[in-house]
Parts: sequence; structure tokens; C-alpha cells
Amino acid sequence: MRPLFLIASLSLASALAAPAWSQSDLQKQAQQLFKPIPSSPPALPGNPATAERVALGKMLYFDPRLSQSHAISCNSCHMIGLGGVDLQETSIGHRWQRGGRNAPTVYNAVFDVAQFWDGRAKDLEQQAGGPLVNPVEMDTTEAHAVEQLRAIPGYGPEFAKAFPGSGEAITFDNIRRAIALFEATLITPNAPFDRYLKGDVAALDTTQTEGLALFIGKGCAACHAGINVGGAMYAPFGVVERPGAEILPPGDRGRFAVTKTVSDAYVFRVPSLRNVALTPPYFHSGKVWDLRQAVAVMGSSQLGAQLTDAEIDRITAFLGSLTAEQPQVTLPVLPPSVAATPQPKP
Amino acid sequence: MRPLFLIASLSLASALAAPAWSQSDLQKQAQQLFKPIPSSPPALPGNPATAERVALGKMLYFDPRLSQSHAISCNSCHMIGLGGVDLQETSIGHRWQRGGRNAPTVYNAVFDVAQFWDGRAKDLEQQAGGPLVNPVEMDTTEAHAVEQLRAIPGYGPEFAKAFPGSGEAITFDNIRRAIALFEATLITPNAPFDRYLKGDVAALDTTQTEGLALFIGKGCAACHAGINVGGAMYAPFGVVERPGAEILPPGDRGRFAVTKTVSDAYVFRVPSLRNVALTPPYFHSGKVWDLRQAVAVMGSSQLGAQLTDAEIDRITAFLGSLTAEQPQVTLPVLPPSVAATPQPKP
Repeated sequence: MRPLFLIASLSLASALAAPAWSQSDLQKQAQQLFKPIPSSPPALPGNPATAERVALGKMLYFDPRLSQSHAISCNSCHMIGLGGVDLQETSIGHRWQRGGRNAPTVYNAVFDVAQFWDGRAKDLEQQAGGPLVNPVEMDTTEAHAVEQLRAIPGYGPEFAKAFPGSGEAITFDNIRRAIALFEATLITPNAPFDRYLKGDVAALDTTQTEGLALFIGKGCAACHAGINVGGAMYAPFGVVERPGAEILPPGDRGRFAVTKTVSDAYVFRVPSLRNVALTPPYFHSGKVWDLRQAVAVMGSSQLGAQLTDAEIDRITAFLGSLTAEQPQVTLPVLPPSVAATPQPKP
Repeated sequence: MRPLFLIASLSLASALAAPAWSQSDLQKQAQQLFKPIPSSPPALPGNPATAERVALGKMLYFDPRLSQSHAISCNSCHMIGLGGVDLQETSIGHRWQRGGRNAPTVYNAVFDVAQFWDGRAKDLEQQAGGPLVNPVEMDTTEAHAVEQLRAIPGYGPEFAKAFPGSGEAITFDNIRRAIALFEATLITPNAPFDRYLKGDVAALDTTQTEGLALFIGKGCAACHAGINVGGAMYAPFGVVERPGAEILPPGDRGRFAVTKTVSDAYVFRVPSLRNVALTPPYFHSGKVWDLRQAVAVMGSSQLGAQLTDAEIDRITAFLGSLTAEQPQVTLPVLPPSVAATPQPKP
């Protein structure tokens, strides 16, 4: 994988290295590499969106009773209103344990090729169940999550409306389906860069436009492309030069843990850069808090480029154009616990 | 205090003990004892509500960066959508420490005579700062909370709009003022009991109406009266018979810690019963999860009455009529952290 990746990166970089790009050439190039976020959520295969399912998913997303302690919900680490993240190096979970990697944003996650930093879940539906049963996150079990919700009387009718038909509606699969559908609504259209892609060159200012040219010309877009400006492929962290252990801890070999393939050591899913200015700290390790520093690290480790301060400024300004309208979410009113509802076990 | 309380309770109980109450007598009696929740928030003295202040207060209420760890917000323990509580015996705070008492609901707290179980804060504004600096809750300091917000550039304009005029707007006092104003909006009008008080006798069903008669007749309303059906006075837990240590832990002497007055030992602010069906577990100790059991404990400990199952059923049904429309809150979009923003210290 590494050789192919390098070839792609270098050929793109050389094709675009000419300094005399024109505005319209740049825009055309950008339109080939990237796509705007759509104004409405994409469909999930085999999981048709209905108002009832999305509403149920929203309830579950915010319900801390899906955790063993009843203190942690999906929103605890992927906070609506805070870029879809928790602004932690790694998340705080059950009994204040720390997760292994920085929490990726839930915003636009539906457009990523796979979920988690190592891509171990193929989609949101597979992902949604993971943190629930992870002992350092929400620490419940599939059976207990189902038992818990079945013992909250108000959920019965909500599941029945969301998953009509015969049979018990409150199942772990349906919990995941509903959460995934709500998460798919958490998209952020109409960033300045989206307006630029749709034709409005004035949507980026001069510095951002120069940053975009550098972003393409230096080769960043070889990995960070597509609708999510990333999120579409895997790449080793340290293609050219492995960053120090403080940024790339040697104990976390990334996708190797999923595929057991030697060439996947220190390979991670390339993160989306959508709203990246809102989601410090950066990298799977969460070790870099300054976006400018993150850009510099990417230059040296992935592209072998020692970016100048002026280049870093421009690329960072361009990344700011990926900050979009944020989702407006009204908190769901959750059904009450009753005497028979299992109590938290902290 | 205790003798006076008993006299009030007993005289009320005997006045209403006659079984042959009429519907309209009961309603009149209720209208004298209780008041409906208004449809709009009350004014806070010296803290005029503006749209900008309330909007800022909502941002602060949901911002975990007011905690040392950046993982705990006001909403962590007083969850909008979950009765304004956390459904924990006592709350989970900084580093998973446990608070000393059950988290009271934020809903309608503005109508309480004072804040906290021991009334140590005279109003919401005084209360709002407490958990921020409590080492077992959010564990920040007044100085650090201010430093934190000043280093989040987006907050400057929000505070300036909320607190226009000369001088630095980001102060601890203004943080508390804004949060208090948002919390004052968290009222829950139009419960069935409110409609009953306003004239619609059919708003309560037969069981609830019988429960109301018992609630008044047995003496519950001697303490649980007024707009919040409680929240207006202090009373010893165990007026007639002190409950066991599992419900009334001997180490927590309640208001005695505030007043250092012997007669205030095991005295607590009488909790509001508004939305009580949504807010288990019960009592300052959070030791009772079943509302029916809580009613029984109150009967024996406060009134010396061994309530029958039928009486408990009716009183519990009446308490259900205090469940109201819940606040509809759209999550605020919080201003992003930048490289210079102080990082969490977990």
C-alpha cells in the first residue's frame, strides 16, 4: 500500500506544482477532488429512515441508561454543539477510564468509508453498538442494554412505531439501527468550501484560496479528498517520516489489530477534515492541540515537506473554510424510569 | 420548629379528615394550598432577563469546559429531557467521585425558597457557582472558570451582548447570572394538576382526586404546598419517627451544617414534588427508588401514619398528576476552543 500511495501523492503534487494556477483551474481541480456535503442525509442501506426511527435514535443517542453507570451517553463523547467531539485527548469512560484513541466527530461520519480510527466497523450501524459494550466506555452488554430499555415502559411504543411488524421491537440490532439513522442526520452542509465547490469562488478569501492551492499542490488532497476531505481510505501515519512516540505511541499499531497484516501497522483511516477547526486535539492519539502544528506534522510525516509558517497559515486558513453550519438538535424528552427499571451499577 | 410543624399538620389533617368531602370543596381547598406553574419564567431580582443573557446561560449550562476535566457540565447532573436530574443515588463528579446528596431537579427550581437540600444558597444565582468549584463535582475555581472562558474567543462577544456596558463582561458573577436566567426558563407548566387548579376538575381522574384528598387530609400538604408542592420551607426528616440509617444516614445532618443550630439537625428543605414521578431515586440520600415506597416512608416518618396500600396507590396517582410538559431545549452551538484555550486537567 505504501508505494502506491506515494506514487499517487507525488504524481498529483507534481501535476499541480506549477505556481501559475488560475482561479478557475483551481476551482475545477477542487471540483474533481472534492464534493460538497448534501443538504439532506444519505440513505442507509437496509435501514430506511422514518421520522419515528430517527426520533427514537435521537432518544437513544442522549440516553445515559444505555451505559452501565447511567452516566454516559453517546453524546458524552460526541457532543452535539461541540463539533461532535469531546475536546479530550482520549475520552473519559466508565469509572473515569480513558479510551485508547481520540473520539472522532460524529458529524458527517456517515460519509466515511468505515468507522473507528482503524475502520473496524463498516458503517454507523456496526459502530453504534461498539461503545455501549466497551468496558472502558459505556460498559454495558448487549443483553443488559435490551433488558434496560424493555424495563423503561415509555420505550415500548417508541420502538413499536419505529420498527412496526411482528416480533419484539426492542432488540440490540434495532437500537443500533435507530442510533445510526439519527447520526446520519448529523451532517454539516454549506461550509464556505461547499459554496466554493458549487461555484461561488468568492466563498473563500484570498488566504483560504492560496491554502487550497497548497493543500492540493503539496499533496494533502491525495489522502484528504472526497466529500469528507478525508475519511475515504486508509494510510500509514508516517509515510515519509514517522513522527515521535509522543504523537504516534508505538503501542497502538492501528489497523494491524483489525487485519493482522504487517503492512497495516500504524495504518489508520484518514480522518475527515470537515469542521476540523472545531475538533481539537488532533490525530488518533489526540496529542496535538494546535491545528497549525497538526498541519506541520502532516507535512513532515506524510509528505516529507517542511512547510513554512506562511504555508501553514494558508493551509490552516483553508481548513477553516471547512467549518460549516452545525446541526440544530432539540433535546429529546426521554421516557422515565420506573420502580422496576434496572438501577445504575457504578 | 418541630412542635409548630406538628400542630399545623394535625390541625390541617383534622380539618380535612371528614370523609364526605365534595369535589368543589376539595378543589377550593387545593386552590388555597397550591398554585399553578405560570406559563412564563418569573423575573430574577437584580438580574433582568434578556434574550442574550438567557442564550448565554444556555451555552454555559451545556459547556463542559466549565469543569476542570472538561467532561462535566451543569447538564451532566441536571439533564434536560430526563426530568432535570441524573437518576443517580448521588451524582458522579470529577474523577468519578460521588456527591453527598441526590441531585435535585433544575426544573421549577426557580420557585424554591432556597437552593440545595440544605438551603445554603439563597437563589439560583448563588447556587449556579457552587458545583463549578466543588472538588467532587466540576472541580474548577472561580479564577480558572473565568480564565477558561476568556480564552475561548467566541465567548467574548456573547458576554458583551449579554452584559453590555463598561468593563470586563466575562466574570464569575456574570457566569452565575446567565446560568441562573437560563435555569429560570426551565419551568414545567400545564400539568394535569395545574389544569385542575385552574378550574378543570376533570383534569384529575377519580384515583388522582382521591389521592389529592388523602394528600391534604393526611397532612402531606402541611409541608408540600405552594406553587412547587414543596420547596417552600424546611422540615426535619423524621418528624414523628426517624427512618433507618439506610435512608437517613446519620453522618449528614442537613441544615445543621449551614446554621449550626441544634434544632436544625436532620432538617432539609422540603423538596418540590413537581414531576416527582420522573425523578427517582428519592430523598436527599437517594436511597429509595420506588415512589410508592417513598410515599410510605413519608407517611410513617413525617406523619406517624401507616398508609395502606390503597392509600399509597391513590397518593402516588395524585403525584403523577404533577408531571407536566417538559422543557423543549435546542442544544446551543458552543464556541470552539483554540490553541490558546486551557486544556482539560483530568
